[in-house]
Amino acid sequence: MKFYSRLGGALLLVALVSMMISSFAFAESKLQKVMKERGLTEKDVLAAAKTYVPTGGRDEYIVCSSGGQSGHVIFYGIPSMRILKYVAVFTPEPWQGYGFDDESKAVLAQGRIQGKDIVFGDTHHPAFSETDGDYNGRYVFINDKANPRLAVIDLHDFETKQIVANPFFRSAHGGCFVTPNTEYVMEASQYAAPYKDEFVPLNDFNDEYRGGLTYWKFNMDSGRLEPENSFTFEMPPYSQDLCDAGKGPSYGWGFTNSFCTERYVGGIEKGRPPYEAGCSSKDTDFMHVTNWKKAEELVKAGKVTKVNGAYLITMEQAIKEELMFLIPEPKSPHGVDVTPDGLHILVAGKLDSHAWVYSFEKIMKAIKDKNFEGTDPYGLPIISLDTALERSVNVGLGPLHNQFDSVDGVVYTSIYVDSQITKWNYKTGKILDTLPIHYNVGHLMTMEGDTKHPDGKYLVALNKLSIDRFNPVGPLHPQNHQLIDISGAQMELLYDMPLPLGEPHYAVAIKADKLQPTVRYKTGWNSRKDEKSPFRCRAGREKVVREGNKVDIYGTLIRSHITPETIEVYEGDTVSIHLTNLERAQDEVHGFAMYGHNVQLSIEPGKTASATFTVDKAGVYPYYCTEFCSALHLEMQGYMLVMPKGYKPQDAAIIDGEKYTKADYEAQVATNIATQDVINQVVGFITSHNYKDFPIVVSLVEDATDQLGFAEEAKTKSEVAAAEGDFQNAMLWANQWWQYQVKTADLGLRAKTHLEQNGAKKVK
Amino acid sequence: MKFYSRLGGALLLVALVSMMISSFAFAESKLQKVMKERGLTEKDVLAAAKTYVPTGGRDEYIVCSSGGQSGHVIFYGIPSMRILKYVAVFTPEPWQGYGFDDESKAVLAQGRIQGKDIVFGDTHHPAFSETDGDYNGRYVFINDKANPRLAVIDLHDFETKQIVANPFFRSAHGGCFVTPNTEYVMEASQYAAPYKDEFVPLNDFNDEYRGGLTYWKFNMDSGRLEPENSFTFEMPPYSQDLCDAGKGPSYGWGFTNSFCTERYVGGIEKGRPPYEAGCSSKDTDFMHVTNWKKAEELVKAGKVTKVNGAYLITMEQAIKEELMFLIPEPKSPHGVDVTPDGLHILVAGKLDSHAWVYSFEKIMKAIKDKNFEGTDPYGLPIISLDTALERSVNVGLGPLHNQFDSVDGVVYTSIYVDSQITKWNYKTGKILDTLPIHYNVGHLMTMEGDTKHPDGKYLVALNKLSIDRFNPVGPLHPQNHQLIDISGAQMELLYDMPLPLGEPHYAVAIKADKLQPTVRYKTGWNSRKDEKSPFRCRAGREKVVREGNKVDIYGTLIRSHITPETIEVYEGDTVSIHLTNLERAQDEVHGFAMYGHNVQLSIEPGKTASATFTVDKAGVYPYYCTEFCSALHLEMQGYMLVMPKGYKPQDAAIIDGEKYTKADYEAQVATNIATQDVINQVVGFITSHNYKDFPIVVSLVEDATDQLGFAEEAKTKSEVAAAEGDFQNAMLWANQWWQYQVKTADLGLRAKTHLEQNGAKKVK
Repeated sequence: MKFYSRLGGALLLVALVSMMISSFAFAESKLQKVMKERGLTEKDVLAAAKTYVPTGGRDEYIVCSSGGQSGHVIFYGIPSMRILKYVAVFTPEPWQGYGFDDESKAVLAQGRIQGKDIVFGDTHHPAFSETDGDYNGRYVFINDKANPRLAVIDLHDFETKQIVANPFFRSAHGGCFVTPNTEYVMEASQYAAPYKDEFVPLNDFNDEYRGGLTYWKFNMDSGRLEPENSFTFEMPPYSQDLCDAGKGPSYGWGFTNSFCTERYVGGIEKGRPPYEAGCSSKDTDFMHVTNWKKAEELVKAGKVTKVNGAYLITMEQAIKEELMFLIPEPKSPHGVDVTPDGLHILVAGKLDSHAWVYSFEKIMKAIKDKNFEGTDPYGLPIISLDTALERSVNVGLGPLHNQFDSVDGVVYTSIYVDSQITKWNYKTGKILDTLPIHYNVGHLMTMEGDTKHPDGKYLVALNKLSIDRFNPVGPLHPQNHQLIDISGAQMELLYDMPLPLGEPHYAVAIKADKLQPTVRYKTGWNSRKDEKSPFRCRAGREKVVREGNKVDIYGTLIRSHITPETIEVYEGDTVSIHLTNLERAQDEVHGFAMYGHNVQLSIEPGKTASATFTVDKAGVYPYYCTEFCSALHLEMQGYMLVMPKGYKPQDAAIIDGEKYTKADYEAQVATNIATQDVINQVVGFITSHNYKDFPIVVSLVEDATDQLGFAEEAKTKSEVAAAEGDFQNAMLWANQWWQYQVKTADLGLRAKTHLEQNGAKKVK
Repeated sequence: MKFYSRLGGALLLVALVSMMISSFAFAESKLQKVMKERGLTEKDVLAAAKTYVPTGGRDEYIVCSSGGQSGHVIFYGIPSMRILKYVAVFTPEPWQGYGFDDESKAVLAQGRIQGKDIVFGDTHHPAFSETDGDYNGRYVFINDKANPRLAVIDLHDFETKQIVANPFFRSAHGGCFVTPNTEYVMEASQYAAPYKDEFVPLNDFNDEYRGGLTYWKFNMDSGRLEPENSFTFEMPPYSQDLCDAGKGPSYGWGFTNSFCTERYVGGIEKGRPPYEAGCSSKDTDFMHVTNWKKAEELVKAGKVTKVNGAYLITMEQAIKEELMFLIPEPKSPHGVDVTPDGLHILVAGKLDSHAWVYSFEKIMKAIKDKNFEGTDPYGLPIISLDTALERSVNVGLGPLHNQFDSVDGVVYTSIYVDSQITKWNYKTGKILDTLPIHYNVGHLMTMEGDTKHPDGKYLVALNKLSIDRFNPVGPLHPQNHQLIDISGAQMELLYDMPLPLGEPHYAVAIKADKLQPTVRYKTGWNSRKDEKSPFRCRAGREKVVREGNKVDIYGTLIRSHITPETIEVYEGDTVSIHLTNLERAQDEVHGFAMYGHNVQLSIEPGKTASATFTVDKAGVYPYYCTEFCSALHLEMQGYMLVMPKGYKPQDAAIIDGEKYTKADYEAQVATNIATQDVINQVVGFITSHNYKDFPIVVSLVEDATDQLGFAEEAKTKSEVAAAEGDFQNAMLWANQWWQYQVKTADLGLRAKTHLEQNGAKKVK
């Protein structure tokens, strides 16, 4: 009947509507409950869903952020905003053994200033290495502003490999920025100082103090900077600031901002207005335009002389060879950013409300036509602002830095005083969107946003204050990185991330899949030099070599013992302990710390690390593994015995605290046989499933097989001792056999869980 | 009509169903889109919603986690799992100026070992101070295993205030655990060593090496440990491990685990089985039960003598006075955990599959009845396992640590080898739930889970491996803390958090509202001693005091200049720079770094910090503020000039790089008048709203008013100079006036944004 059919149809519709939402209904009611309990809005839940990365999931981008005065750099994931690693660069850091093992001490020693160890850095602007203007995922460079230095971090293992100290500067803020093929890493000085390492009074500031810009030569094959092939532009005593390298049509050129072109010298204590007044009085400062390609040719042609042991292009030479030009820019600018197509340069002045778009073509034409408005006091030609400018756009009060979108022409500018991000189009001058920020954003970062091919998607605002954003933790607040979704027309705030250590200034983000770091080293590896260590040691070859009062100990580490377990030396000896981690398994790191001697090593699988120290005082010095590595980690221990000079070791044997009988031995063997049954069951489960489809499980099985091999060796020793009626050692080796079984079981159970949770299938 | 009414009813139903979901429909479709794009399940979205904290939101709990070999402790929020702060304790850390300023160097110097500066720590078990068995939110204690020391962190400002070195031990893992009113902080030794600070051969291990347990006296009023009122129990050369203090009925007693009661001495390099075999051969080790209340009375009565300058209760005295007893426990245990009601003690042995529930009543009865199964080799009475045990429960392979739920009897145990959490009831012995963990959990933590009143709600598994959990960052992986929802019957995994620096071992979580840290210091404050600094300085009172070759500089810091801006000293001088941060505004921190001298201070509002160093070499040494503080932060700079010995400063004035005219001055004044109009508009907006209801805005307005006051001072100086026809200084001071206006505007705009975003209302 029609009547029923219509009603039936309507009811069917009800059912259908219910079904349409049924798959979501359960979760929805749960979700609404959570939202109500936690006071979340729908916008919050969307932001949560956009940033949450489930267990075992991967982030899409990896950020390398400077760590400010901590001296480290920081790696974190986007969109989860989870911090993955602090990598120590200029500051000793014991977890990584950095500045504690001889190998990394040698890296830090490269950065000595006036022969002195420097134990911190003020890191500012990290840069990824590039090929053809895009990130290649191989290296990160980072500068130290306080003691002008540059460091190289290898993304193969996330370790600092090299530090170089600038031969001319006493301060360097404007690094690191790379040329499109990482031919050079740019580093500009900040506070002018004499190039000669001696006292010069401030009265001679204009004549004797100098700024500058160093182009550090980088060798992508060796992964090292080459000071001997690097060169520096002498610059006036302005405060040079950030840089960027030209790309595409502007390839071969570099751009460097400056402030305090007033060359003001403060002295508030003597009644003079302070630097902040004198350094911001003029309406404009100067962008420095340098032709590095032509400079490189001059260096190669032997036409540049060395000063302080390094190539220096004097202002006189730069003027003569037409290598350097100045262009006015809005006062006290910060970021200078070359557009992805290389055609424009964007400058934002912190005390202005405009972003300034310079045309590279116009700059080149002015240079070609020698169309200069004059020279600065040092004779450097000045291209007028009118000549070089394409347009200026009112973006807000205190623009600071620009980063690019994947959409052509679209750029984001951080606005310091207004505390906002402005999205605009530098090709049309149109403002597209603004978003308030909490609070006072410094730099900002889009995904691969300073390359030839920005990815868009996300933006991070590097905020300088967190005031009311997080639970309070005392007068020193964390910084705040705010993650913003820029995939739509309007910017949407997703996440506030506190930075728990250090003050990041600048960050760069790379596609995560460009990074393929290793999880282990070749056995016996000096990771800082990337070569086999002369101090490497294989299992069973551990030894002590004494020459006079210099003692070299070649040892090994494996779950869960250190060989040797006793080190005997004499008061006054210089001791070098060289330890090789014999593990091949991922994440099986061992540490090594010792009482009283500032020894703390981090020894990843395959690594050889060394600690050298003198022993001043007779005594007993326990050492142990500092990285939780197995159930018997706490028993991974030993003693260094420092004997008084002339002391003769007694021949007496150790008196065992516990004696074992044949019955003890047999009980242990019975346990071991029962344990082996458990292992066999786990092995049965694994091999009856398609475990070879799971790389993690394959590596766990390999490791478990190794451990079972060790168990077999201990079993043999135990049986030999038993056969000789030495039940003391028979029992102890039987227990060691069991310890290896426990390690095997641990790995097997982890593998089994992984298979169960990841849908492994039974095989015939 | 019936027909239509029925159909209409059905359609109404459709409409109703649709309406019921309509409020959610928009977000849901967006949410489903995000889920699809990001591959999230409904479970993932629920977990995201349970952990996400929106911008400006607060976490419910604050965790204090040890930082392992980093030497720091780590504070993070639950449920967001965002890390808020690394607080430096045993390792110098430049962001905090820790180990860089004289004040914190004095704290680190308290922890010298054999007169030597120790530059790292191996932090293990933090403990919050307690009143009547509950956290009081005042202090955190943390131990160093490598060089046995204890530190006190004040939660008033999250700074390390004190370090004490143990007078007897050479290694101490078993700290920190507090008695219910923080009368004492317990610290147990780990690797036995001679008490006398000299060489003793391992042959004498049983007779001359000793373990121990120190009860450090704490004074809650002064916030300091009192070594002079602390006492140590001499213990056999077992490896003492973790501790817990009795509470309620067991108040006055302490419990300490141990392993290697075999007293085994390894020597794998000489063919002896390694420590791991010999230290785990016996089926049981010993729980040490100590009567600290009675011991305290003996100390107070003058019946305990001092050794190494500290009270030592010898084993002989402990036996005689019935202060210490042993009870067998499953071999190689780790956690020893007193139940919230104080009636039971739970022990888990890493090489066993049971958790062991001991009855405090049974232990007391055995002691009263002198019901001992014998003595250990040192004469300490042993209570038999049967006598003391309530029950044992099979919880999984490798139980390690127990934490309590808010539900009576419910406990969570971390299972190392099986990589899981087991939820069970220690009163019934019933297993309630298990959850797999990724991977190999060490300790675990529930909210206030070791107090008299655990909160339940969340559990964190402190996992030791992260292998496949995160984007790879080289051979050294982060650790992984997994957040688990325990509010329901079944445990639910919510979040994986990587630890980017250090290896946490143990963590404690406190209700966030128990912490009320300050955001500023009293002006001129030595934060490490918590007293007025003798080196404090007020604005305008900056001075240089020279005595022989010792130079003291009393300076100040304020947005955006350092007073003095020039420091003149002679080669060979010892220089002390004392700087006071004049700011009162929250988060207005200034830093101070100098080239070549390892100077890096962090000076929060009100703090006075000092840097003392010798100047070896004549030269020019720039210094600057390292904490981004304002738009003119980069201009917050100065020079230390180190003059050669005998050099006479020239009288010549600084030659200004730029000259200003009356026209320049007048243009600047015009700008300032225009800027004042903008400020007035912002002020108008703020004062026309109920801004006094917003504490953050009130403090911003106060700060802005201060800045405007400074602007007024600069304006006056500018007008005085102009009246004298000195347009150079008139212009510079006019610009300084403008700089203060910009700072005022910055604050005003931040306040305005806050009001707009937080629904401020117009007032009449």
